[in-house]
Amino acid sequence: MNRLRLPARNSSALSEPFKFSSASQANSAHTVAESEKLKDVSDQIDTRTAWLSPDLLAAVRANVPLVYVDVIPVRVDSHGRVTEVGLLLKVASDGSISRMLVSGRILYGERVRDALVRHLEKDLGPLALPHIPPNPSPFTIAEYFPDPEISGFVDPRHHAVSLAYVIPVSGDCTPTQEALNLAWFTPAEAASSKIAADMTGGQDRLLRLGLAHVGKLP
Amino acid sequence: MNRLRLPARNSSALSEPFKFSSASQANSAHTVAESEKLKDVSDQIDTRTAWLSPDLLAAVRANVPLVYVDVIPVRVDSHGRVTEVGLLLKVASDGSISRMLVSGRILYGERVRDALVRHLEKDLGPLALPHIPPNPSPFTIAEYFPDPEISGFVDPRHHAVSLAYVIPVSGDCTPTQEALNLAWFTPAEAASSKIAADMTGGQDRLLRLGLAHVGKLP
Amino acid sequence: MNRLRLPARNSSALSEPFKFSSASQANSAHTVAESEKLKDVSDQIDTRTAWLSPDLLAAVRANVPLVYVDVIPVRVDSHGRVTEVGLLLKVASDGSISRMLVSGRILYGERVRDALVRHLEKDLGPLALPHIPPNPSPFTIAEYFPDPEISGFVDPRHHAVSLAYVIPVSGDCTPTQEALNLAWFTPAEAASSKIAADMTGGQDRLLRLGLAHVGKLP
Amino acid sequence: MNRLRLPARNSSALSEPFKFSSASQANSAHTVAESEKLKDVSDQIDTRTAWLSPDLLAAVRANVPLVYVDVIPVRVDSHGRVTEVGLLLKVASDGSISRMLVSGRILYGERVRDALVRHLEKDLGPLALPHIPPNPSPFTIAEYFPDPEISGFVDPRHHAVSLAYVIPVSGDCTPTQEALNLAWFTPAEAASSKIAADMTGGQDRLLRLGLAHVGKLP
Repeated sequence: MNRLRLPARNSSALSEPFKFSSASQANSAHTVAESEKLKDVSDQIDTRTAWLSPDLLAAVRANVPLVYVDVIPVRVDSHGRVTEVGLLLKVASDGSISRMLVSGRILYGERVRDALVRHLEKDLGPLALPHIPPNPSPFTIAEYFPDPEISGFVDPRHHAVSLAYVIPVSGDCTPTQEALNLAWFTPAEAASSKIAADMTGGQDRLLRLGLAHVGKLP
Repeated sequence: MNRLRLPARNSSALSEPFKFSSASQANSAHTVAESEKLKDVSDQIDTRTAWLSPDLLAAVRANVPLVYVDVIPVRVDSHGRVTEVGLLLKVASDGSISRMLVSGRILYGERVRDALVRHLEKDLGPLALPHIPPNPSPFTIAEYFPDPEISGFVDPRHHAVSLAYVIPVSGDCTPTQEALNLAWFTPAEAASSKIAADMTGGQDRLLRLGLAHVGKLP
Repeated sequence: MNRLRLPARNSSALSEPFKFSSASQANSAHTVAESEKLKDVSDQIDTRTAWLSPDLLAAVRANVPLVYVDVIPVRVDSHGRVTEVGLLLKVASDGSISRMLVSGRILYGERVRDALVRHLEKDLGPLALPHIPPNPSPFTIAEYFPDPEISGFVDPRHHAVSLAYVIPVSGDCTPTQEALNLAWFTPAEAASSKIAADMTGGQDRLLRLGLAHVGKLP
Repeated sequence: MNRLRLPARNSSALSEPFKFSSASQANSAHTVAESEKLKDVSDQIDTRTAWLSPDLLAAVRANVPLVYVDVIPVRVDSHGRVTEVGLLLKVASDGSISRMLVSGRILYGERVRDALVRHLEKDLGPLALPHIPPNPSPFTIAEYFPDPEISGFVDPRHHAVSLAYVIPVSGDCTPTQEALNLAWFTPAEAASSKIAADMTGGQDRLLRLGLAHVGKLP
């Protein structure tokens, strides 16, 4: 795959709608939590967010780390063995078109579990049927910085602390929104240097850490 | 519940069929592994085991720790939150009728995943649909000894090193074989002193460790 | 212990110096990372932070979750068994004087490991000799919200996503800064309802989850 | 390194002293547990073991999986980052001279923690100062079989279920007993194909899984 670097002004990732709660909407967190079993939870979260002024957005990004989740979506057999790994093809935060994990921010007032479901639905569609693990602990913490020398995980936009999970999905997956494509790879393919060359920001390494966690690193 | 202590000679647990491979059958491990996706894997494992002479059984139990799995079967909602915990009512290894976890030995030549599926099917029936986690690491190691002072986990028969898991089941559960009953409790009920009083061998504590692992200990 | 609730205006926790990097200082993250083995790393982090205007502070807190670490400091024996748990006595975020874990924010540009060392040094002194675990994964994620109904973990100031660790310390611990006192308890004492009554914001439950993680929950 | 394959009759690994408790000595488990904080615990364990007749040894190995521990000894800096990985040079169970992890059996009546300390002392000497983690859960389970096709982890002697840990050591390490040599490698070297070529039985893969667990897989 030839990596295509888009002009920054056309990059949907760089102009990603960075949504914030208004002060009054923030108070509805409790109500959201109570209704978290409802099917329309992600809609509710969307409706209580709003655009932040560019100045405030820049100030936040320059002053506090943001909280993210990274998900490696997998297919498993009846004994829990990972048989396939799903990777999106989309515009990365550095403007490249790359193979990517499911990834995104945890919103104000949002539970980690709800963020996992929301981002999986956003990227894999509403019928993906993710099996969120009962244990809330991530398999690792990926620390993204603008400077590639700090941790090897890079996000040119900001410092993000990302909770990383391997999550089985058993339903129909259809890439939605900004993803151009979703493809499934065997664990050996996913860990290969060929796939690594199509990934950016250190996500190829995060993918290998996740494969090791499930005993599937070659 | 009044705890009923059965005479040892009537206890199905104490006279549990302790099966061993014969030397020639042990060599079939490879074939078993190749067919591990087949639905009848547990039947195959049963057919390649056989009774061990009482002398050899006693010698094994007196000389090496045995490898076990303990499973806390749970119901989860669409976001992975544990909503219910399943506990069996059966005759424990100390002869009491107790609330128990799904528990059993790993056989010679058997993968941990296969032992988990086999014991879940044996205790919850073939339609339980367990979701074995991709990550093979147990949430804790329960070390059972005949002497209750060593670790608090007690098995009067032998020293067992048990890999403990919390495993969601999404199908129909019907207690089979030696279980008298299967009941579902909320996490708060499962962690209560009332349930603890109905458990034996330290399994009430193992249950609380598992509830803590999934963030559901009150 | 009688819980003393201080007027909010006198609470050092509520008026906690909430430090932010200025935009230009934020670019020094790389330099900080390179010097992270130096003993004066926490000083450097302090010098590159500055006060945020009350308006910006309020805007951040109303719009994004903050990233925290929670640490249960423990004493262990030569075999890694937890023998004692350290709890601070200090003013909590709700204004009460409570038994508390070591806890604090991850700064912009700061690695999780560096935040753990910085907060342990801040609360237990520079000679505490913490043994930060090689594995970066927390034992659980504690999600703090102003609303106590959401998760049971409460911070009246903001939504915080906290990475929770159990960390052995082998040196001399002397409470510093805002802590009035540091006391050591056996695991059984630490898990007792007596200690729970002296804790706030759900930290007693977080403590029990940590004790379960190390196999020391009674 | 040229791999030297020794004749089986000269292999210390194949003729490894496989010790068993006699029936009467097995009853001393409680006493051992009570004295487990004593410095001479490993001596006590040795004295209560004895040779097993070749017939019983063969019967055990053909009928039950044995319980093992595998340890990746590491050096860490003050922030818990792994800086070096220790690998032994010794005769492996397949008769080759290989780079190996610290590895060995859990004895009857022995706690997992005690087995970790005993094997680390046996292989790295009594001054290695291992920091056994408070959390008893291994980072993965390595399942060794005589047949290399089953799991990729191979032990020609028997089926072993091995609990795998990454354990920092801060003292002086001097290879003892059967080890010819102990060498320290950077994480990148340890994960390289060059080192993998000097390892056997799948331990190179187990090493990479451990490096991933601590975030140090390249």
